[in-house]
This record gives sequence, C-alpha cells and structure tokens, in this order.
Amino acid sequence: MLLNRRRAEKKMEQHGLDALVATSPANVLYASDLCSRNCFVLLPYERGVEPALIASISGPTPVVLMSPPHIRDVRYYGEFYTVVPKVKGGFTNAERELIKAQESWDRTKIADPIEILINLLEERGITKGRIGLDESALPYQHPSWQEIRRRLPKLEVVPAERILREIRMVKSEEEIRRIKEAVRITEKAWQTALEEARTGITERAFAGIYEHTIISEGGRLTSWMGMYGSPIAFGRRTAFVDIALPSDYKLKKGDILRLDGGCSYMGYSCDMGRSAVLGQPGEKTLKYWNAIFEGEKLAIGMAEPGAEASVIFNSVVEKVRKSGIPEYKRHHTGHGWGIEHYDPPLIGPNDHTQLEEGMVLCFETPYYEVGWGGLLHEDIVVITESKPRYLTKFEGELRIMKE
Amino acid sequence: MLLNRRRAEKKMEQHGLDALVATSPANVLYASDLCSRNCFVLLPYERGVEPALIASISGPTPVVLMSPPHIRDVRYYGEFYTVVPKVKGGFTNAERELIKAQESWDRTKIADPIEILINLLEERGITKGRIGLDESALPYQHPSWQEIRRRLPKLEVVPAERILREIRMVKSEEEIRRIKEAVRITEKAWQTALEEARTGITERAFAGIYEHTIISEGGRLTSWMGMYGSPIAFGRRTAFVDIALPSDYKLKKGDILRLDGGCSYMGYSCDMGRSAVLGQPGEKTLKYWNAIFEGEKLAIGMAEPGAEASVIFNSVVEKVRKSGIPEYKRHHTGHGWGIEHYDPPLIGPNDHTQLEEGMVLCFETPYYEVGWGGLLHEDIVVITESKPRYLTKFEGELRIMKE
Repeated sequence: MLLNRRRAEKKMEQHGLDALVATSPANVLYASDLCSRNCFVLLPYERGVEPALIASISGPTPVVLMSPPHIRDVRYYGEFYTVVPKVKGGFTNAERELIKAQESWDRTKIADPIEILINLLEERGITKGRIGLDESALPYQHPSWQEIRRRLPKLEVVPAERILREIRMVKSEEEIRRIKEAVRITEKAWQTALEEARTGITERAFAGIYEHTIISEGGRLTSWMGMYGSPIAFGRRTAFVDIALPSDYKLKKGDILRLDGGCSYMGYSCDMGRSAVLGQPGEKTLKYWNAIFEGEKLAIGMAEPGAEASVIFNSVVEKVRKSGIPEYKRHHTGHGWGIEHYDPPLIGPNDHTQLEEGMVLCFETPYYEVGWGGLLHEDIVVITESKPRYLTKFEGELRIMKE
Repeated sequence: MLLNRRRAEKKMEQHGLDALVATSPANVLYASDLCSRNCFVLLPYERGVEPALIASISGPTPVVLMSPPHIRDVRYYGEFYTVVPKVKGGFTNAERELIKAQESWDRTKIADPIEILINLLEERGITKGRIGLDESALPYQHPSWQEIRRRLPKLEVVPAERILREIRMVKSEEEIRRIKEAVRITEKAWQTALEEARTGITERAFAGIYEHTIISEGGRLTSWMGMYGSPIAFGRRTAFVDIALPSDYKLKKGDILRLDGGCSYMGYSCDMGRSAVLGQPGEKTLKYWNAIFEGEKLAIGMAEPGAEASVIFNSVVEKVRKSGIPEYKRHHTGHGWGIEHYDPPLIGPNDHTQLEEGMVLCFETPYYEVGWGGLLHEDIVVITESKPRYLTKFEGELRIMKE
C-alpha cells in the first residue's frame, strides 16, 4: 500500500477533516495503489468508515486487474459496453471482476462522478463537518464545487492539494521500494552503457544502450510529453542542464559523461546524477568533482531528523566553495522526491522545513560552465533516526573509464 | 511549425481577441514548437506584433537547443546559475545561445513569469481590448488572474483553453507529419513482434519485442505515469479494453492478438488498433471481424467535410449490426486526435460537429465480450476535400499468422 495511513490520519486530524477526496492521477495512485484515469478516491478519517473508489467504466481494466486490496467499494460512472454472456460458468477471477463492474454500472448508469461522490458522502454519513477536496484535477472554477455545496450545505469543502502533499512528504515502505527499484534499473543501464562505450561512440548510441537496458529490466523511460530522449551528455555539452536531447556528438579522450535523472518503475521515478571521464581526467575536472562531492557528502552527513533545509543549503554551498570552487553559486542543493517528482522540502536558502524520518531526498551540488562542461553527483537517501540510508549505490570517487 | 497560424488568426478574430497566451505544456509546444516546462507563449493577433516566449532559466536547454525559429523574443524568469567565462571566443552556436540566455536573465533577475507577461503586454501595446489566457495550467483561482487585471484594468482577460482546442482541431502539416511518423514506428514494431511470435510466446515477451523496436526506430513508449506497459493482449484477455498490462499468458492456436494505441514521436502519439489470429480463426472471429471492419470502412467512406459526427456514428452502429453483430452497442466510433491525444469531435450520438478539411480522426468499432475476447481495427485518417487520406496502412483482411 502506497498510502501512509497513519500520517494521513494525523494530517486530517490537524486540519480538522472528516475525509479527503483525491482526484489527480498522482493522488489517486497514492491513495488507492491504482494507476488509472479520471478516478476519485474517498478516504474517510475514521478507520471504521470504508474508503471508496469512483472509476470510469470506459477503462475498468486497471481496476479489475490491479484490484487495490484495501478498497473494496468501487463505483463506476460514464458509459461503456462490454458484452456479458448469460452463462456465468468458467470465468477467470479477472473476468468475474469485469462482469461485476459492467453489471454494477448497468444498474445505475450514472454519467457523472460528482453525483456518485455526493451519494457516497451521504451513505457514509459525511454530510456535515469538513472535507478536503483535491483541487489539482478539479479546479475551483469547476461547477462540481458548487454542486457539492448546494447538495450538502452543512458540509464545508476546502482545497486539499497541499494537505495531500504534506502527507506524501513522508514516504511509506512501498513508495521507497519503488523508488529504489527505479534506482536499481537506472544504475544497471548507466553501468551497461559505460561498459560498452568506447572512444567515438555518439551520445545517441550511448543513450540507446541505456534505454534498451531500462526496458529489458522492467523500467519505463521517463519522457516529457513523449518527446525527449534520455538525460545523457558528453564533453562540453554537459554544461547544458537537464539535457535530454542526445546528439551525434562523439565521445573523445578526457570528455566528461553525465547522467541526470533516471527511469520510472510502477509510477515512481528516480533523480540521480553521475559523472564519468574517458581516460585520465584533467586537473580541473578532478578538483571540481572533488569539491562538489565534498559538498554533497556534507549535506548527507547533516541530513537527520530536525535538521533545517536552509541550514544544510548554506553549509553545503560554503563547503563547495572551500573545497575548490570559490565562485560556486546555486539556488538549491537538493529536494524531496516522490510520486510527483519534486516534493517539498527544497534544500534552498528560504526553506526552513525540518527534516523528518521517512523523507526521501535527492542531494546534489551540480556545477555548469559554458564552454567547459558540467559535473553532477546526485544521490537519493531516506532520512532515518540515525544516518540517512542510501537508495543509490555509494560512489566515493570520480569514475574513470578506459579509453 | 506546429501552429496553424491562419486558423489561429481566424479564431482570434471570431472571439474578438487581441492575443492568446498559452500556458500548458501541450499548448506551449503547439504555439512555439518547444517542449519545455513552465513556459508561456504570447501570440498576438496582429502579424506585425512579435510573439514571445517566457521560459524558466532553470531549464534553458530545450529553448537553446531546439530554438523555435519563429519566436525570437525569449525572456527568462526564475533562478539558475551557469558559469559564463569572461573570454567570449571559440563557442558553438548552442553555447552562445546559452550565454545569451544566462546574461539576459542576469540583467533582470525577475522571479515571476506573470511580471514578465505584464511587461510584455505593455511593450506590445496590448493593454486594452481582450486577451485569451489558457487556464489549463493557470486555473482561475491562481492569483495571477487578479494581478493581470489589477495592473492592466482596461484589458479584459478571458479563459482560452477551449479556443486553443478549437484552433488545434484542424491540424497543420507538421502535426500530421509527426502523427504519421508515430504510426510508421508503431506499425513496424507490431509487424516485427508478429513476425517473431510463435505458439507459447508470452504477452510480456511479445510486448518486449514491440518496445525494443519502438526505441530502435526513434519512438518513445507512451505510458501512463510511467506505470503501464504496452497495449497488447492475447486470447480471452483481449476482452479487457485498453489493456496495457502484458502478462505471462502464453499464446495458443486460435488466439486473437490485439494492439490498441501506439508510440509517441516528438510530442505526438498515435492511436491505432490491429487484430491478428494465430492459425485458422474460428467462425465467430471471422464473422465479427468482418462486421466491425464493415462499420469502420463505412465511417471512413462518410468522412468528408460537412459530414456530421452523430450521423456517421448512427450509420456505423447500424452497419455493424447488419453485418454480423446484431447486439452491437457503442458510445462512440471514433474521435479526433492531436497533441493532447483525444481531440474534438467525438464520433458519438450527441456530437453534431461537422467535419472539416485537415481534421485528423481515429475511426474504430471495437467489440469486447467477456470470456471470449475482443476485436479492434482502428485507423487514423486526415479529412481532405475528397476522400480521407490514411495515415495508417490500409489492411482489408483479418491478419492470420502461421502457427
């Protein structure tokens, strides 16, 4: 179960909520383990009151095949026709669930999920007090807000996107497992590509090895609107931050190779950074890599419950400056990581959040210089009572590849 | 250029707009050819007034490397540091652009894109009249709406998501080219997997061949939050609509194999459907495939400028019923296709849109029966003056694979 139920209860109590309604794909996945479109999840505060899922009948497959075990009450809206034979024998479990879904929809044929949500709130006795409605996929201007208020006038409805973010800031075991698996696959792909790379390989060919390995290992390529390639660059092109447009540039002796990002696994991705050099690195490369590594190491050393984000940031920038890059400037040196990628807190000058056990954080101290290149070493850790636990493999030296 | 400039002008005129502001990633890509996060595009109605792009300095790489040729005025907001050496010689074009971006931001250091937008509107003389602001990534409740109205009180600001959709309903040549390339890659991947498939291959292994081919051909896998696999199913599992969870089910004689969807290419994906059978198909499979194919063929035959969506829908459902599936029921038999996948119109009973030249439409007449399976044949066509042009390869028979 992705949901951190205990933290959800604590936050609902703090905000005086009787229930939370998740609407965005990320929040629905988080609340139900279910990856589907146009669903709502009702999470009542009281454990005795059952949660429920509102799903579109035009895409029942994920509900039926991924069947979230902790949500038994599923209600369908929309319109869709799957033929259900009159004979009921010889079906698989999944087929029986599909028949159940189609038949339950056939009985009601409600087109509007808000209608179902209002009925559900009435059935569960949540008609006064206060609920939090996730506005990220149901913005204020949507008439649904008015409709709920009109039909349940004693119920206060408040926006809850921020509350859901607060809950998600501390990760559950299953979330950490998925991020760790995305890391494993990414590390394997980067390693495989490094092993096969030789002088003269193009960024594109290198990215190809990386991508095929990710698919073979069960990961998915993260892409931005299905457009970018993989976040890999060589040589002076490493000065371009977040580069994900592999080119025909050919690797040559002394070049930096840089990875920034990673694959997805079951809805969770990873953001890790690695640098390597083909052949003997230049003096500046070694010195600068050492400086950024010292900064990142200090950050991870400071990352314990109660530590303040901005304090870590300031110490890290100073450390990088003292360790070899006196002109070092950054706007952040790390960030939370979760189902929507960047999560609070930001390890930046204005974020005074205190770290908590169970947060997953990326620490990084990148350096970018036009005409020279960029260096990045980014690890993902979980905050624990004692020292942070690495989800990435610890690497204490700049990686040097044979020519 | 993805933007259909002539249609944009026509629609701005119809809605009395002096400019449009795109905010969502899809609309920004459409208006600027640029795939990046957190950008705005200002498109003035008058051709003499220059368009502009507002981009985050923390991710200038796509702007610099993909440099949209028709937008020369780019302004950066946010915070990011790339070191710019004092010596200015020996840079590549991309590096020079990156230096320009960093230096232009250094001069202003404006954190807020709305501040830049307001300045731009003033510079362009768009301070009265009416503009359309894309609310899809900047919802009403966002304080930016108030801020623009406060600073430019004579300017009327209206929501424009729907207007942008209207513009995008008729595709430009470049949009069609990208969809066609997504189709080509998907067809190649499906074909390759079919050629390698034998009795006993699992859905997962088949999907693996399909996926590796897509990567090799330059496509990207479309996935839902990085979670699903590829939309491939065998046997009775083809009754599950939109299935994208390949399993260990092994292909056996007489099984249907079904594809529904496709890959992405440069921000555009495709939605095509194919069915095949391993060995001699059963009588019902042949009869039902013929019925759905007749329906789809009729739809494409009727698809000409001026034809009404609901009229096509009604004729198609009747045709499938008469051609062999008397119990056939559907909620739609096709839909527009574009940058955000489903586009208006919907070929359904309640959509009275008249087709226009340049629309890209998917036509489909799927049949799903629990415990038996599903059949799908879905093509993508462009509406022309005369007959629709297929973007998919025409296939006039159910595909039969050797055992």
